[in-house]
Amino acid sequence: MSGLIGRTGVVVRNIPRANSELIDELDRFGVATVHEAQGRKGLLASTIRPIQQNHSISGSAVTVLVAPGDNWMFHVAVEQCQPGDVLVVATSSACTDGYFGDLLATSLMARGVKGLIIDAGVRDTRTLREMGFKVWSRAVHAQGTVKETIGSVNIPIICAGQYIEPGDIVIADDDGVVVVRREELQTVVDTSRKRSDLEEQKRLRLAAGELGLDIYAMREKLAERGLTYYDSLEHLQG
Amino acid sequence: MSGLIGRTGVVVRNIPRANSELIDELDRFGVATVHEAQGRKGLLASTIRPIQQNHSISGSAVTVLVAPGDNWMFHVAVEQCQPGDVLVVATSSACTDGYFGDLLATSLMARGVKGLIIDAGVRDTRTLREMGFKVWSRAVHAQGTVKETIGSVNIPIICAGQYIEPGDIVIADDDGVVVVRREELQTVVDTSRKRSDLEEQKRLRLAAGELGLDIYAMREKLAERGLTYYDSLEHLQG
Amino acid sequence: MSGLIGRTGVVVRNIPRANSELIDELDRFGVATVHEAQGRKGLLASTIRPIQQNHSISGSAVTVLVAPGDNWMFHVAVEQCQPGDVLVVATSSACTDGYFGDLLATSLMARGVKGLIIDAGVRDTRTLREMGFKVWSRAVHAQGTVKETIGSVNIPIICAGQYIEPGDIVIADDDGVVVVRREELQTVVDTSRKRSDLEEQKRLRLAAGELGLDIYAMREKLAERGLTYYDSLEHLQG
Amino acid sequence: MSGLIGRTGVVVRNIPRANSELIDELDRFGVATVHEAQGRKGLLASTIRPIQQNHSISGSAVTVLVAPGDNWMFHVAVEQCQPGDVLVVATSSACTDGYFGDLLATSLMARGVKGLIIDAGVRDTRTLREMGFKVWSRAVHAQGTVKETIGSVNIPIICAGQYIEPGDIVIADDDGVVVVRREELQTVVDTSRKRSDLEEQKRLRLAAGELGLDIYAMREKLAERGLTYYDSLEHLQG
Amino acid sequence: MSGLIGRTGVVVRNIPRANSELIDELDRFGVATVHEAQGRKGLLASTIRPIQQNHSISGSAVTVLVAPGDNWMFHVAVEQCQPGDVLVVATSSACTDGYFGDLLATSLMARGVKGLIIDAGVRDTRTLREMGFKVWSRAVHAQGTVKETIGSVNIPIICAGQYIEPGDIVIADDDGVVVVRREELQTVVDTSRKRSDLEEQKRLRLAAGELGLDIYAMREKLAERGLTYYDSLEHLQG
Amino acid sequence: MSGLIGRTGVVVRNIPRANSELIDELDRFGVATVHEAQGRKGLLASTIRPIQQNHSISGSAVTVLVAPGDNWMFHVAVEQCQPGDVLVVATSSACTDGYFGDLLATSLMARGVKGLIIDAGVRDTRTLREMGFKVWSRAVHAQGTVKETIGSVNIPIICAGQYIEPGDIVIADDDGVVVVRREELQTVVDTSRKRSDLEEQKRLRLAAGELGLDIYAMREKLAERGLTYYDSLEHLQG
Repeated sequence: MSGLIGRTGVVVRNIPRANSELIDELDRFGVATVHEAQGRKGLLASTIRPIQQNHSISGSAVTVLVAPGDNWMFHVAVEQCQPGDVLVVATSSACTDGYFGDLLATSLMARGVKGLIIDAGVRDTRTLREMGFKVWSRAVHAQGTVKETIGSVNIPIICAGQYIEPGDIVIADDDGVVVVRREELQTVVDTSRKRSDLEEQKRLRLAAGELGLDIYAMREKLAERGLTYYDSLEHLQG
Repeated sequence: MSGLIGRTGVVVRNIPRANSELIDELDRFGVATVHEAQGRKGLLASTIRPIQQNHSISGSAVTVLVAPGDNWMFHVAVEQCQPGDVLVVATSSACTDGYFGDLLATSLMARGVKGLIIDAGVRDTRTLREMGFKVWSRAVHAQGTVKETIGSVNIPIICAGQYIEPGDIVIADDDGVVVVRREELQTVVDTSRKRSDLEEQKRLRLAAGELGLDIYAMREKLAERGLTYYDSLEHLQG
Repeated sequence: MSGLIGRTGVVVRNIPRANSELIDELDRFGVATVHEAQGRKGLLASTIRPIQQNHSISGSAVTVLVAPGDNWMFHVAVEQCQPGDVLVVATSSACTDGYFGDLLATSLMARGVKGLIIDAGVRDTRTLREMGFKVWSRAVHAQGTVKETIGSVNIPIICAGQYIEPGDIVIADDDGVVVVRREELQTVVDTSRKRSDLEEQKRLRLAAGELGLDIYAMREKLAERGLTYYDSLEHLQG
Repeated sequence: MSGLIGRTGVVVRNIPRANSELIDELDRFGVATVHEAQGRKGLLASTIRPIQQNHSISGSAVTVLVAPGDNWMFHVAVEQCQPGDVLVVATSSACTDGYFGDLLATSLMARGVKGLIIDAGVRDTRTLREMGFKVWSRAVHAQGTVKETIGSVNIPIICAGQYIEPGDIVIADDDGVVVVRREELQTVVDTSRKRSDLEEQKRLRLAAGELGLDIYAMREKLAERGLTYYDSLEHLQG
Repeated sequence: MSGLIGRTGVVVRNIPRANSELIDELDRFGVATVHEAQGRKGLLASTIRPIQQNHSISGSAVTVLVAPGDNWMFHVAVEQCQPGDVLVVATSSACTDGYFGDLLATSLMARGVKGLIIDAGVRDTRTLREMGFKVWSRAVHAQGTVKETIGSVNIPIICAGQYIEPGDIVIADDDGVVVVRREELQTVVDTSRKRSDLEEQKRLRLAAGELGLDIYAMREKLAERGLTYYDSLEHLQG
Repeated sequence: MSGLIGRTGVVVRNIPRANSELIDELDRFGVATVHEAQGRKGLLASTIRPIQQNHSISGSAVTVLVAPGDNWMFHVAVEQCQPGDVLVVATSSACTDGYFGDLLATSLMARGVKGLIIDAGVRDTRTLREMGFKVWSRAVHAQGTVKETIGSVNIPIICAGQYIEPGDIVIADDDGVVVVRREELQTVVDTSRKRSDLEEQKRLRLAAGELGLDIYAMREKLAERGLTYYDSLEHLQG
């Protein structure tokens, strides 16, 4: 399917979507935990930042490929969205224009879409926050766009350095955005749950003052690598 | 008047100011709408960001040209400000030092100035927020400045990529900053009002679930450009 | 002591710490004032930004040098921390990975550490804010790190362009981060206090509408440098 | 195959390679022409720049995924290279360290490798140029790397924003780097050839003074879009 | 005339051009000297860099405003060029696409155009160098552009932070690009000549070992500002 | 001595200089080798780049601290230079202005200075190359500077992220710039020599086709870490 990357002029109507309960569960773990749970892969570049604070979403990716400075395909994409989806947008050439504002958000909210991930700019950010529509973007910029050049909807895209297929699951919070391959969702949920439980136990021990050095039994390995303790800087220099 | 750009050592005492009711009305529409209403021009670079969230201002520009790392001209500019003005500052060479802090803000507030737009850095940002003085800047940096080199007040400047004359109107919100030429203010207000009304109608239709594809009658034009629908990725690949 | 910069494999157990009352007093003045008070030195690069708003800290630096993408030394550093300390972290090569999250923060809070300054990335930022653990970092990124390469704890480091020794005092607020040499603390507190008092007086005069031009007696010096006033742009051009 | 992106700990020994005569022919057309010929897709980000001037290469991609600051997998990759190959390297997390220098280049040249494309840093650049080993990289930096963490060789990677499979063809010149899917090579060569021939004809006409406006029959379409000619700026303003 | 900035859909056929002997003379002085000679104004941002080394040009600006990712107006602009002109291009929204390549250069060379200044990307850079067509740009990128949206030719533009009118003179060399207002050309040539002669005299004295401290009589002023000499670091610390 | 960092108004006349034969020998090894030889420390940020290609220098650092946009201290520094020195310049606040041009270079060459390392901008770059004066800088920019604010000469500075004392040795080539502490020079030369000899032997073996995997005996360690070989992508996926 990767052969379709970059192809323009295409809309795919039906995409596979994962189990919504599993998707919702991922949201609870957060981006950092999911990223670890799937072996540190799938993380979008740190240039993608939320326009709101202390919120997270997870959902099925409806993917969009747009031309620089041209947001025509957003209108095409809206029709392909279902409740629980997240719009994920890549540009065919780097652009920070404000592709997306409150009107498109109104349309997406009317269809139950949870939010937008876009490797470009958005605008009307205050209104978007007031509406409760969640956005992660590369820029905030009032610069408008035209509707002259077609792109594609629901083909595989490269967004902020990650390969994303329509129907893959995206999780976004204050730390960034991670993509989970649809066929790996169950596994990643299971691993995230275990990891999360384990972290909870560690948290309790750490909060009680136990040291990571002891919990993870690091002292010996550190010594093997040559870590040496000195009583003071004078001891070290002398 | 553009011949004065970059000239130093000059202060102009009296500048033309537009009708304050029109200026205030622009504030309500927001930067993105005003930018569209005047044909997508006048937008400052997206590097200029607010230090506060969910606030907007509009006012007559009192323009300032300063040397890198030197904020002497701010004190000269304060005296030229009137209630409703906005200080707009460009540097003669790129600089992110913290030119402006709470003392200057106190002085400007005492004169009724609405806020500051600066293509450089500011500091004391927490206090500025607590005081309610609005700032859009390129950087937040505690780095101080000296008072050794003169610049100018109330000459045309290039600020964050836009040409701004003293008395032009600047509108700033969470999306950025746009400048409206003083002689075009009435036209831009009228167009913004129409655009805003039109958007309100569209918003209602979109919120009701109508599609932009239909509202804007895009389907035929998209088909002409060759946009093709497929039932699934398998149909597309096969 | 500067000869130790960049040395790896070393942990220093006992570091000198300054008087905690003086340290706490610095916090009240804020970064901009302290920076001025010590002659505009010690300011970290403006790339270091807080993950929370309207908070400040000051404390004794426990310094950490880490390898790119490797947070092993954090666990070593925790054990060296005391109540009132601030962890200050530099990397041996530029990196924006998320070295630090809520588990490490839990461990540091259990030891009374006030916060973290890191010239790299952090994650779990929402949880960190909810926990009340204060962080200043160069990036927010969910990207995890490994534990394979050793660094050092409590040696002099270069962090965001500043030389910092263990036991130096770091002050951090919304404007950035400044370091005060331990042996200069008393002097800097005294100067900051005077400066702060002086600013308070100026603030009152400025709030009352007095001009900086007059308070600082700038008019003559500006005229000497050639600053010229014109009644209008027409006067200037004509 | 895209499901393998980001997987670590894997080396694939045998990869499909395209016809070498076709690969060599692509080199002659250059990156810009190939990019156009395949419908403007496959172009790596413009952050990837050559360390030499006026040289180009094309070859089969041997792909490498490396950890930040760790070049261990280069040594693994060398063994998998054949004459005519190009090493294409992505990092699992952004890094500008100097992963690659003259020793590794010596080893690759001994195996007939044509060059290196790396979304990270390199060093020994003067020697690399003297050796005639071609390199495109994101940075030049003397910063060394360690050998502690494994990655993968010959799995699909995302390099500078493009999806690349082992055996895909990369073309690199002074304009940047483009990837051609192996299965599309014949088509892209054919299209590039036609495009190149066509451009040659246009070049002759343009060199003779004919205008693109006429050659491409643009005048009418421009007028339709509303382009208006004025005899002078005075005519336009008046 | 500044009221025309940002206006689209306009081509102005006849623009004023300055005396060509004066223009050519400016080229000899170089960008740094001309910039100084006109009081340090008119310098484009340092993001504009040459694609060739050790070359300079000067000429009358034919200005072009283009949409992001759209190079249609280049073809319109070619027709408006005369021998000795330099094409100066700004985008209505930031873009690094490769707007310009060897075909357009062929067309411009056929009309005697000296070079291109563009606040965006170019491609075919190796061929451009081989053809001897001089280019200063913000990026080199093979990314192609479309021809869908109109801009303007020969209206005032803001290019890389500077206001440029059609017929203004641009000088470009390895240090960057500076614009001279057409009506100030004679003055700037005179001042540059004097400055250049003066510098030549200083160069001889400096080459002979005389110190700038003495030539410029700086010692007293430095002492007044408080500069203090110490025989050694020990003397300073002690 | 680190307590002097950031202090202004100071010139130190006599600085310790290392043995010139040892300094010259370091030049032969290059920055990457020296950096490795001293345990990967002392490397300046990769933002510092040469304005010429295929040249290197090494010499004793005469350090200069300058204000943003102010090059006054260069003239003070010239007088403190001796044959074989390298001027190393840091700014008290980030700045990319063109502090340095051909006149200052003429003066430095008259005193036998080998080159300039500056964490800011330079100009007259073509002339500097023609004169044979070597420069490494953060920017090339024609923007001039003033002479209003004093800094210091020959105190410890932080330049591009590294601590440098007057008399420390800087080595610069196409890969960047590294600083060697004066007291460690002999050791670093010895280690560099050994490392260089060792590399020469490895180069011969690698050129003969031997693999790093075997020379460095990596196969077992890689297997331990879990690296697995597959005959083809099909084997891996199946």
